[in-house]
Amino acid sequence: MSDSKKFLLQESDIPTAWYNIIPAMPTKPRPFLHPGTKKPLTVDDLTPIFSEEASRQELNTTDEWIEIPEEVRDIYKIWRPTPLVRARGLEKMLDTPAHIYFKNESVSPVGSHKLNSAIPQAYYCKQEGVTNITTETGAGQWGAALSLASRMMGIDLAVYMVKISYNQKPYRRSIMQTYGAEVIASPSMSTKAGRKIITDHPNYQGSLGTAISEAVELALATPNCKYALGSVLNHVALHQTVIGLEAEKQMEMAGEYPDVVIGCFGGGSNFSGIAFPFMRHNFAGAHSTRFIAAEPESCPKLTRGVMQYDFGDEAGYTPLIPMLTLGHNFSPANIHAGGLRYHGAGSVVSQLKVDGLMDAVDIPQLESFDAATLFARAEGLIPAPESAHAIAAAIREAKAAKEAGEQRVILFNLSGHGLIDMTSYDRYFAGDLANYQIPDSEIAANVETLEKLI
Amino acid sequence: MSDSKKFLLQESDIPTAWYNIIPAMPTKPRPFLHPGTKKPLTVDDLTPIFSEEASRQELNTTDEWIEIPEEVRDIYKIWRPTPLVRARGLEKMLDTPAHIYFKNESVSPVGSHKLNSAIPQAYYCKQEGVTNITTETGAGQWGAALSLASRMMGIDLAVYMVKISYNQKPYRRSIMQTYGAEVIASPSMSTKAGRKIITDHPNYQGSLGTAISEAVELALATPNCKYALGSVLNHVALHQTVIGLEAEKQMEMAGEYPDVVIGCFGGGSNFSGIAFPFMRHNFAGAHSTRFIAAEPESCPKLTRGVMQYDFGDEAGYTPLIPMLTLGHNFSPANIHAGGLRYHGAGSVVSQLKVDGLMDAVDIPQLESFDAATLFARAEGLIPAPESAHAIAAAIREAKAAKEAGEQRVILFNLSGHGLIDMTSYDRYFAGDLANYQIPDSEIAANVETLEKLI
Repeated sequence: MSDSKKFLLQESDIPTAWYNIIPAMPTKPRPFLHPGTKKPLTVDDLTPIFSEEASRQELNTTDEWIEIPEEVRDIYKIWRPTPLVRARGLEKMLDTPAHIYFKNESVSPVGSHKLNSAIPQAYYCKQEGVTNITTETGAGQWGAALSLASRMMGIDLAVYMVKISYNQKPYRRSIMQTYGAEVIASPSMSTKAGRKIITDHPNYQGSLGTAISEAVELALATPNCKYALGSVLNHVALHQTVIGLEAEKQMEMAGEYPDVVIGCFGGGSNFSGIAFPFMRHNFAGAHSTRFIAAEPESCPKLTRGVMQYDFGDEAGYTPLIPMLTLGHNFSPANIHAGGLRYHGAGSVVSQLKVDGLMDAVDIPQLESFDAATLFARAEGLIPAPESAHAIAAAIREAKAAKEAGEQRVILFNLSGHGLIDMTSYDRYFAGDLANYQIPDSEIAANVETLEKLI
Repeated sequence: MSDSKKFLLQESDIPTAWYNIIPAMPTKPRPFLHPGTKKPLTVDDLTPIFSEEASRQELNTTDEWIEIPEEVRDIYKIWRPTPLVRARGLEKMLDTPAHIYFKNESVSPVGSHKLNSAIPQAYYCKQEGVTNITTETGAGQWGAALSLASRMMGIDLAVYMVKISYNQKPYRRSIMQTYGAEVIASPSMSTKAGRKIITDHPNYQGSLGTAISEAVELALATPNCKYALGSVLNHVALHQTVIGLEAEKQMEMAGEYPDVVIGCFGGGSNFSGIAFPFMRHNFAGAHSTRFIAAEPESCPKLTRGVMQYDFGDEAGYTPLIPMLTLGHNFSPANIHAGGLRYHGAGSVVSQLKVDGLMDAVDIPQLESFDAATLFARAEGLIPAPESAHAIAAAIREAKAAKEAGEQRVILFNLSGHGLIDMTSYDRYFAGDLANYQIPDSEIAANVETLEKLI
């Protein structure tokens, strides 16, 4: 461990533009569809919900580089550039000839990469005179990031937090409140959608789908109010490309180029952030790096989902998105990587996967905690349960390199730390955690109804 | 907030030597005394408990600079140099002409400055063939740091954790276990001291004093085993001077020199770390910076204690230390800044305070949380309840500067983040926290017995 090496950039190295992968894609993703008219979505369809600039970015398929506002870069400087680390401690423990690097996004004030998109989203709202934002949060990483970002912009934020997390993860709730956000357990009596569910199912513990419905409903009903989302969508992935763009410079400092790039996968934001900037060199024929999204075995949309138009939320309020999906009513097991419990992948990643331009692996829960513990002891950082999936995939790759006797270069994204997830580790050490394999029949039943959507 | 500014150093700027303040002190502290013979302590008296090098450093009153081993510097590189930040967001919120800087020690993998001393202490043990270390921990910051440091050195660690914290702070316990340490609730049946207390008081929830006794007893009874302490002692303060030495360079980058330097105060390690390197320029007559230790109102050893020889632990196993103390049987209120609940100050700080070379303020608990919340919203970082005391003192100074209409330069140490202390914030927001003023009579009763000690 003692010779693990950090590669550090200067503030002037923070990218000045985000990378939009869509223009360079060999096959573009099919368009989002309006859920009513089933016609391709326009910017005007999006602006009642999202800020205008986020709406434009969402549908921008032509500009490869989108300028990062100076004010956003200034706030990025609070914690960016983030370190790239050569994980020699882990290499030694695995006795592998592979060189393992990780980009450490856990150093942000809220402990994860989510702030990379929360800042610009709140900034655009501010620019456009928005005074209130609503959002939802599952485990709480996104909610914490947007709470801080909104506070910085002087905008009031209401967060619908999935009720089971609200009760089980009080620390994340407290973090949001410390930043001054209003946190509401979802389902709540504050919206029509919430009231209906509470009336029908008084003991319902909430879901991301319901929380999205409540947040969207409140945004639409409130003057000067927009909604913000922390993953899945194109503009969110766009903002996260600062991760890969910095890593690219840092790999150059290290004198290496990755053979494999890995990110954990929920809706796609951190995976896209680390992968897309490197992927453009594949598209240009300069490299043939492999890209691996590491999803949980219990929520295997990339490895076992179907490519279909589907809703982004359970209630069906969002546009129809062309995605690899398990069906918007899929109810994933209550694994501790709460940030990865989402039924579908964003449209870009879905297209890339279908076109064979990237791979995916599904990681059993116990393997993810084995990997997390090994990593913590080797490198000193306790990873978030989500990020542990990327570590597990990196360890698989490092073992494969050893078997092949090849000195492969592996890069993964450490999307967040696990210091507020220690109850998960407790349960792991106590032997209380299990793996959750999904029967084919359950997936089939869920996706069966999707064809009727368009 | 958007224009808060970071000052970053390169890895090559990590100090190559720690600063030992004792040689430059106008009045040296009186020597530690052997508790049995009452004679000045020798290195040989200390080595049964501490590593030889730590023992030598503890009694070194002649060498101003003590080299940092290359291997320790290499591990420091995992998170050092730490950022210095100009807190413009906070300045704006306070509308003060003061320039406020903070050194951000919360960026270490365990979230606090404690790792600065845990690494060299574990390293010296390793060099000397030690295979086991014991320690105690209250809130868990020190225990977490030494767990990681011991793991890095391949040494087994047993941590006696005060029982009430063991049950109330499961996250810190889990962090230690994730790093592979054995964590034992104290009092325990594993030592004579523990068994006696459990027998006499079956429901006793533990204290730092008891935990120290257990850890020392286990170290003495175990082959190849040493004990390690995370504050109070000279060698611990010594290791922490990397904080101030880096800050000195960073203030130079900022083109300013601090008029006031502030640290929160439990046993003295982080205060000493930020203050001592700047204090040497006062001694040399080059500056007249003010130094302020911020202690909790409920544990006011610096502001209301007496200067006496006293034990470092409740049971009286340690050497006699000349200290500003509330008496080793003083039982502080159960405030949320667990790391500041210690009855005495280290001998060097005590002497400096008595000689008028530094100041101290006592901060009510509610003021500390007011300050913490303001800081979180202004700068994005949620501080540890301990560090919040330094922030509160800095805010007082910034307000005084405003009243005086002076552009004073204030530097404080952010010793750690509060992400694993969110239950404390919860209770603060719920209005459940109180202030605890100590009656003079209680302090008098506690210190009354001390004169008999020598």
